[in-house]
Amino acid sequence: MLIVQKYGGTSVADVERIKAVAERVVRTAREGHKVVVVVSAMAGETDKLIELAYQVSSHPGEREMDLLLSSGERVTSALTAMAIQELGHKAIALTGRQMGIITDAVHTKAKIEKISGERAKKALDEGYVVVVAGFQGITEDDGEVTTLGRGGSDLTAVAIASVLGADLCEIYTDVEGVYTTDPNIVPEARKLEKISYEEMLELASSGAKVLQTRSVEFAMKYNVPLVVRSTFTDNPGTYVVKEDKDMEKVEVSGVAYDKNQTKITILGVPDRPGIAAKLFKSIADANIVVDMIVQNISSDGKATDISFTVPRTDSDRAVRITEEIARELGAKGVSVDDSIAKVSIVGVGMKTHSGVAAKMFETLANHGINIMMISTSEIKVSCVIDAKYTELAVRVLHNAFDLAAEE
Amino acid sequence: MLIVQKYGGTSVADVERIKAVAERVVRTAREGHKVVVVVSAMAGETDKLIELAYQVSSHPGEREMDLLLSSGERVTSALTAMAIQELGHKAIALTGRQMGIITDAVHTKAKIEKISGERAKKALDEGYVVVVAGFQGITEDDGEVTTLGRGGSDLTAVAIASVLGADLCEIYTDVEGVYTTDPNIVPEARKLEKISYEEMLELASSGAKVLQTRSVEFAMKYNVPLVVRSTFTDNPGTYVVKEDKDMEKVEVSGVAYDKNQTKITILGVPDRPGIAAKLFKSIADANIVVDMIVQNISSDGKATDISFTVPRTDSDRAVRITEEIARELGAKGVSVDDSIAKVSIVGVGMKTHSGVAAKMFETLANHGINIMMISTSEIKVSCVIDAKYTELAVRVLHNAFDLAAEE
Repeated sequence: MLIVQKYGGTSVADVERIKAVAERVVRTAREGHKVVVVVSAMAGETDKLIELAYQVSSHPGEREMDLLLSSGERVTSALTAMAIQELGHKAIALTGRQMGIITDAVHTKAKIEKISGERAKKALDEGYVVVVAGFQGITEDDGEVTTLGRGGSDLTAVAIASVLGADLCEIYTDVEGVYTTDPNIVPEARKLEKISYEEMLELASSGAKVLQTRSVEFAMKYNVPLVVRSTFTDNPGTYVVKEDKDMEKVEVSGVAYDKNQTKITILGVPDRPGIAAKLFKSIADANIVVDMIVQNISSDGKATDISFTVPRTDSDRAVRITEEIARELGAKGVSVDDSIAKVSIVGVGMKTHSGVAAKMFETLANHGINIMMISTSEIKVSCVIDAKYTELAVRVLHNAFDLAAEE
Repeated sequence: MLIVQKYGGTSVADVERIKAVAERVVRTAREGHKVVVVVSAMAGETDKLIELAYQVSSHPGEREMDLLLSSGERVTSALTAMAIQELGHKAIALTGRQMGIITDAVHTKAKIEKISGERAKKALDEGYVVVVAGFQGITEDDGEVTTLGRGGSDLTAVAIASVLGADLCEIYTDVEGVYTTDPNIVPEARKLEKISYEEMLELASSGAKVLQTRSVEFAMKYNVPLVVRSTFTDNPGTYVVKEDKDMEKVEVSGVAYDKNQTKITILGVPDRPGIAAKLFKSIADANIVVDMIVQNISSDGKATDISFTVPRTDSDRAVRITEEIARELGAKGVSVDDSIAKVSIVGVGMKTHSGVAAKMFETLANHGINIMMISTSEIKVSCVIDAKYTELAVRVLHNAFDLAAEE
């Protein structure tokens, strides 16, 4: 088999862990597999570099930021290859450029355009383990160094697995797999044996941190079999695969939460067509992703309130834009609420089980938790609630949908 | 003018120093000059990376070592460019690859083969300060990352200055310039206003650490005007230039010493032609540079002792090779002496002043310092002595040749 193994920052946090990774890699290779390893920067390194950048500059240039940050993964890739060589196995470290990862020129959040992988294929055929520096690529025209954004090493691994036609892409991390919810909040949370791409995608975009959203999208699009498992044990982890019939037997597969959103409301907007379009176009133009939107007609039917949520990190900019537009439109004002949380239930079973959303609303109501906003997809229901009820909401939902029980 | 400024590790050791470098660079640019900046890794970073490598591997692969070490200069180049941008000046950071620095494939001590510099020229014409990551390049065929060895950033600066036709190459460091000898040993040591390339080369290869030997050779070959000066003051520093008539007025320009050599003696070798050739060819084949060689005919005229010195770091390997050859030749044995030092006097004035070497030997003898080996060039005399006399020898020679006096 051809296996791509991705090791996150905590898995390569220090010399001892890098050696442990090398041992796992060599064990896999000696079982007769071809192995490509993708590594993140050592835990804490990327943050340290970002801190340095902000110490020399209040607005560090993004082009230079990419050059800076890409160095973290280069260090780990070199050290990991050395550790593998030390165990007597051939290994070669490749930078994003040497791996042939070509991206667009959007610095700090570049998109992969193509991967040649020629050099890696040749090295694999010659018996080398190929160790790739994750998170980075270069532009085709200028050879500029780019990075793929937070969690970009997951994407590197999935994209390489797809291009090389790997049989499996293993994502090694510091947890045992994907859980029905955060075990820190619900100790009875259960590790899932498998989960569909669609569910994983909804969980990731609902706040579950185990996999980066874009890498799940990519895996789904190119049908790359993924498994999320722990670097620190030999347990099998969670397979992320195509949806199958079994999966629809359960109503809900998991409960996710996200405390990093801000709710912004523009109050008393004249109720004319095109108002919402104008507001959300301005926000989109500023590259801010709006998550949920609710519009209420006011009691007199002449004005309306529009509420929406944005990532906490973008809230200052979003508020500034909203206030400008509120002035232009003659709205009554803008209110901002930072103390909210989004709680979501996800499951492909929703498609065939009716009443799942109603059961969620009822459960929250029974515990005195008010719902501020609701959004739904085919396999997800999300509610915005007061942040102080987050843990309670997660616990009661986990219980209501019987997630601790054996599958 | 087009000025290349090179800042060493202590000059960019932390955020405050990087900001100070940025200020000096911007000041130079605002005086109307085009500026290329070459930076080393932050002081201590390269050693830290080497330590990590030896923690994961007893014999780290040189290819991966280069990938690892090159990251240090990338970090500094990005941070320095950011700091310059923060001061309101355009700046762009370039890696060795982006600067077009092509080297041979001898990892960890690659030689520069050519520099295209097209991108840098364009950026300079557009008003950018160009910040180059020193010490690194890539191979032309495979795009392998290479490094130029210790002090390689000096070489990067001089080579770029040569290719771009710079008017001046400024080497910024933590000392005020080139001194008549080490001021830590002789407090009266005097900073030289100027020194010839040849003298600088002899001083550098005799143990003076202020400039890397290869970069001086390169500057001499391509006639690049160099100045060595302090990052921490505005003092003028020492110009390293073509020899002029004035320089011959003084007998000796400086005294250097080197404590990092080992003396190896192969005892009682049959005195046949070709013996020395065989020994030194084997040592050269192992890429070990032999510095001084002395051969003594033994008293009975039938056997000979050959003594030579090698860098301390290579001594274990050199001893092993010598012992092997000693066995083959039926020599009596091999002795090793680590407690030696080389003391050298350098000056273009020697060419016209006679008796300089005699004065050196006499001065050492007057202070009871025995000379074990002697080697001379047109502008240098070196003596190997017992290491414990190093400081004494440097002081008495500095005094004997009147080096503290005003020029």
